Amino acid sequence: MSSVVSPCLAMVGLGRMGANMVRRMARAGIGCAAYDQSAEARAALQAESGVSMATSLASAVAVLPAPRIVWLMLPAGDITEQTLHALLPLLSSGDIVVDGGNTDYRDSMRRAALLRETGLHFVDVGVSGGVWGLEKGYGLMYGGDRAAIGALQRALEALAPAPGVGMVHCGEAGSGHYAKMIHNGIEYGMMQAYAEGFALLKAKTEFNMDVAAIAEAWRHGTVVRSWLLDLTAGALRDTTAIDATAPIVADSGEGRWTVRESIDLRIPTPVITAALQARFASQGQADYAARLLAQMRKAFGGHSVDPTQAAPAKR
Amino acid sequence: MSSVVSPCLAMVGLGRMGANMVRRMARAGIGCAAYDQSAEARAALQAESGVSMATSLASAVAVLPAPRIVWLMLPAGDITEQTLHALLPLLSSGDIVVDGGNTDYRDSMRRAALLRETGLHFVDVGVSGGVWGLEKGYGLMYGGDRAAIGALQRALEALAPAPGVGMVHCGEAGSGHYAKMIHNGIEYGMMQAYAEGFALLKAKTEFNMDVAAIAEAWRHGTVVRSWLLDLTAGALRDTTAIDATAPIVADSGEGRWTVRESIDLRIPTPVITAALQARFASQGQADYAARLLAQMRKAFGGHSVDPTQAAPAKR
Repeated sequence: MSSVVSPCLAMVGLGRMGANMVRRMARAGIGCAAYDQSAEARAALQAESGVSMATSLASAVAVLPAPRIVWLMLPAGDITEQTLHALLPLLSSGDIVVDGGNTDYRDSMRRAALLRETGLHFVDVGVSGGVWGLEKGYGLMYGGDRAAIGALQRALEALAPAPGVGMVHCGEAGSGHYAKMIHNGIEYGMMQAYAEGFALLKAKTEFNMDVAAIAEAWRHGTVVRSWLLDLTAGALRDTTAIDATAPIVADSGEGRWTVRESIDLRIPTPVITAALQARFASQGQADYAARLLAQMRKAFGGHSVDPTQAAPAKR
Repeated sequence: MSSVVSPCLAMVGLGRMGANMVRRMARAGIGCAAYDQSAEARAALQAESGVSMATSLASAVAVLPAPRIVWLMLPAGDITEQTLHALLPLLSSGDIVVDGGNTDYRDSMRRAALLRETGLHFVDVGVSGGVWGLEKGYGLMYGGDRAAIGALQRALEALAPAPGVGMVHCGEAGSGHYAKMIHNGIEYGMMQAYAEGFALLKAKTEFNMDVAAIAEAWRHGTVVRSWLLDLTAGALRDTTAIDATAPIVADSGEGRWTVRESIDLRIPTPVITAALQARFASQGQADYAARLLAQMRKAFGGHSVDPTQAAPAKR
């Protein structure tokens, strides 16, 4: 891990994902010109890793050999869009822009077409693995033309769990983010399935089961064993933390896009849809409908809307 | 693997699960008095494994040391019930009956109470792992009193992936089958989430993605990696087999029981419920409702019910 290696690509965005990806590439001898608009983020990574930082987008690009590779690892949406537009005047024909964020694949298709007009390449990379990626490697699914992906090969192999493992060229630009969107949609459904099951174990008070012990046992030999279950078994051990957790689950784009896609393609996705809807409900978004339903029951049956009386007795 | 070892327990039911469990215990030096009502099943296992077979329930029980352990590995429901009642006159106080089938936990609670009246122990064991269990070991979740489970410990450790790994004492009798029911409910949700996601990849024809290659890549580094995904990636490689598969998914009890339990406990399970409902629909059970809906559309809007015109154009 050294700053002496001359940079092969610029990494723009040094949040949890981008910073760890710079670290993982550094371990493989791949130098990055690392940049974040936050001086604090730059200082933190430099102090800890010894990777030298660029102090502007322009200086990050300036140190790269041609064809230049600029990898964006930014929040999807406006920030990615603005950074891309700031970047374009700094690039020349043949250069490659990579978007590794959780971008809507339609935006990636549009950006690829835009860049193609000036001879630039666009590669969209879906990156999975979260904070564990630094040690275990990242699952990578990418879209774009073969030449551009060829130029990225060394970086992709360094980021993946192993060269050729956990990495796949899905097709033309957009297909990488499409695959990542579906990956996350599946993740929504799997997470919800586990959560519902553990809730049913927990609620069966007459058996007084050790839910964490059951999760731990399920990690081995069963049909439901998975990496998500490994993490969940760990979470279940800390009952204090679970009790203190607000029962609100955020959603961050891909779940909604997956369900939108199911509509556009007329492919039924009852489970992924239900998992997304459960998150909306956890966010309080079902409360108005619940209030209205309680009022309807009052209107036709005189049922109480007093919260202390509205719920039926347990079992 | 030898028939010389004196039997420690009787295994009743030598189907895919029971026969492999006899084999796995034999490898660990645990002899079984193996019995199946089918002479063919007995002959097949004897010829291949060298394990000696009992030719009746009575002779299987007769060779066991006290306390006798009789492990039922039978289809849940009538066959298990009838075998249990044939077995009871052959047993004495202190003996142990194990039900390793996919039994409704309420039946297990009832049977445990029945056996307790005559001093017999009942242990319910949820067994996961399918045909892979022989090599990889079985995930085991069991309910019953500590004394009976202590007597079973050696057998349980031989069947599990490793001693103390993938095995859990859930609580009193019934809790093992309760945990297995929930395990299978989760499995329904996970399977459906994967299936929906891959269907969305497949349907996005403009990207012409290699769905099998994406599944293979997802096995490493991603959040959705799991043993089910390992199997699914294998299945996706054989597109001929997938095309030739009838689009009908059976359900076999636990899914329905899990959803029933969600009602009894008032715990929302939208994903597991949707996964079960999707299986019912695949079995043609949604056809009547679909016909009726088509007729309603005809009634108020004059829409066609001709199957060649009823579906909207793709996208």
